[in-house]
Amino acid sequence: MPHDIAIVGATGAVGRELLGLLCARGIAQCRVRALASARSAGVALSCGDSSVVVQELGAGSFLGSSLVIFAASAEVSCAFVPAAIDAGALVIDNSSAFRLDTGVPLVIPEVNSDAINADLVGGKAHRLIANPNCTTILLLTAIEPLRRGFGVEAIDVATSQAVSGAGASGICELLDQSGAVLDGEAVTSGGVFAEPCAFNVFSHDSAVDPGSGVNGEERKIIDEVRKIWQDPAVRVTPTCLRVPVVRAHTEAIVVTLAAAATEQQVREALASGAGIEIVDDRAGNAFPTPLKASGRDAVFVGRIRPDPGQPLDRCGRSRRWCLLACGDQLRKGAALNAVQIAEVAGGVCIR
Amino acid sequence: MPHDIAIVGATGAVGRELLGLLCARGIAQCRVRALASARSAGVALSCGDSSVVVQELGAGSFLGSSLVIFAASAEVSCAFVPAAIDAGALVIDNSSAFRLDTGVPLVIPEVNSDAINADLVGGKAHRLIANPNCTTILLLTAIEPLRRGFGVEAIDVATSQAVSGAGASGICELLDQSGAVLDGEAVTSGGVFAEPCAFNVFSHDSAVDPGSGVNGEERKIIDEVRKIWQDPAVRVTPTCLRVPVVRAHTEAIVVTLAAAATEQQVREALASGAGIEIVDDRAGNAFPTPLKASGRDAVFVGRIRPDPGQPLDRCGRSRRWCLLACGDQLRKGAALNAVQIAEVAGGVCIR
Repeated sequence: MPHDIAIVGATGAVGRELLGLLCARGIAQCRVRALASARSAGVALSCGDSSVVVQELGAGSFLGSSLVIFAASAEVSCAFVPAAIDAGALVIDNSSAFRLDTGVPLVIPEVNSDAINADLVGGKAHRLIANPNCTTILLLTAIEPLRRGFGVEAIDVATSQAVSGAGASGICELLDQSGAVLDGEAVTSGGVFAEPCAFNVFSHDSAVDPGSGVNGEERKIIDEVRKIWQDPAVRVTPTCLRVPVVRAHTEAIVVTLAAAATEQQVREALASGAGIEIVDDRAGNAFPTPLKASGRDAVFVGRIRPDPGQPLDRCGRSRRWCLLACGDQLRKGAALNAVQIAEVAGGVCIR
Repeated sequence: MPHDIAIVGATGAVGRELLGLLCARGIAQCRVRALASARSAGVALSCGDSSVVVQELGAGSFLGSSLVIFAASAEVSCAFVPAAIDAGALVIDNSSAFRLDTGVPLVIPEVNSDAINADLVGGKAHRLIANPNCTTILLLTAIEPLRRGFGVEAIDVATSQAVSGAGASGICELLDQSGAVLDGEAVTSGGVFAEPCAFNVFSHDSAVDPGSGVNGEERKIIDEVRKIWQDPAVRVTPTCLRVPVVRAHTEAIVVTLAAAATEQQVREALASGAGIEIVDDRAGNAFPTPLKASGRDAVFVGRIRPDPGQPLDRCGRSRRWCLLACGDQLRKGAALNAVQIAEVAGGVCIR
């Protein structure tokens, strides 16, 4: 089955992560077709102890593909997803192009793997499944055990997002600017971000809607949570910021439960949650950080505490719980989630 | 009036800022007594175009002082504030030692300057006034116009705090670690913070209460807001984080008003607020950042928007408003607020 798995955008940050995950799962390099723009054609990407040579993406690129994972821009997905579907492949799209389309499942396997096979028309399996935005994946993976256990009425979340969310050029800009500042040079903004990113914090670089004041990243969280949970009215209140971190996002979460819970109940639920690792050492002041989460599969969850702003009820319960979550947005926030979808959707052996 | 103004902890980050502010106000250097531990005695601190030589702090240090500003630890304040009061000085304490004491006003001049002369026993003016914690000062200055206009029922706030909040050694640790990382060395934690601070985000380094899970910084915000507002039940839900920023804190705020307001009403209120500078350019994606706020007096406020998680009411109003605020925690968050208190409290000419 040579070339039955294609990665579109293979040279990007998420594409490289995908290649690494497939190799780690023992996929033979001859099965992987690495696709990118003409500019990157001919580049050799390491894949285990061998390598894969990048081919130029074209309408005919998907011949023989059973699985195509798109890890490029929404424009590229709009242009080439139809061809991949026509070629008979299962398509998993990491871009925002089709996420909110009716009939396209938007899936976090730990949360709504049942959506993969829901609402099928004529018994035909979905051929296109969308991967949510990184911040949505990390957020909903972290709180899924609470939703299952107690229901969720509202989410307040403030994100501290790594520069690699803006691609490899974002990392270069952070490191170059940091070096310049340490050398005593004046801080300036670069080509990727409008604000200086070294030793600074700034509102997320996605476009801000002139009417609502909500930026694109925040809008994705709101819309995607509502679709994934099939709860169009759930209150989601995000503020998305960038921080001078290379990799992995941090989210300060306050979740309002439908039913009040004790701390023991909340901890037991989270401890049994899928895809979560608890890091919550109050005595040692050791909690999730982006450095701890970088390169790791799990979403790290800690600072688990009832809202200190209001008293517990007479049974020691609260409906509002605070959490701190960190996760690798290139891995669980993108590449790993796509691979997990492919594994659950089946039809392609990716081991 | 030589030596009628004393600064305790003059060599620290806040102490140096105080000295700079007094010089900028035209205070003659001969009026300022710079006090610190024996270790720093003899050090010359620049004050305008002259300098002030640090003297060792002792019980007799306050002879002739009309104003003493403490900018050292709570332990130092506990040990020496009584002597300063006995010497007849007006004492402004930047530490946490007396902030919650009954009978000690806790003051942000833009918010509750009336507290300076409230509840006086026997007509005698307060001799000790406490300066709130930096995060509290920046938060309450930012939202005071909304409290005055519409009332506030609840505050959710996630802070991204600069390392200089932990003193000058925190800055050194950030810069040293950042250089080491750029040189390809492994990331390690240093002596000031338990977690690596370069290219990382971590839960605030104050001690975490083993029972509630709330850290010291968060507890200060809750308790101080309630005291300053004289509203012991107001819901305040903070999460405090450190970020790799040298100076100035960032706060993602969601404020729940008592009365719903339109965006125009909220903007007009904030625009007329004291101590605030609005930076809110949706089209240019230009909002408050810690770099913009560093070295500036004002608290910068932007990302002004109604909670996008719930619809506006039929009159286009919302009770929940999101803001992003940045402020220099050494200046308005500490030194400037103390000088403002002294100016309002009077009795000492500091111009």
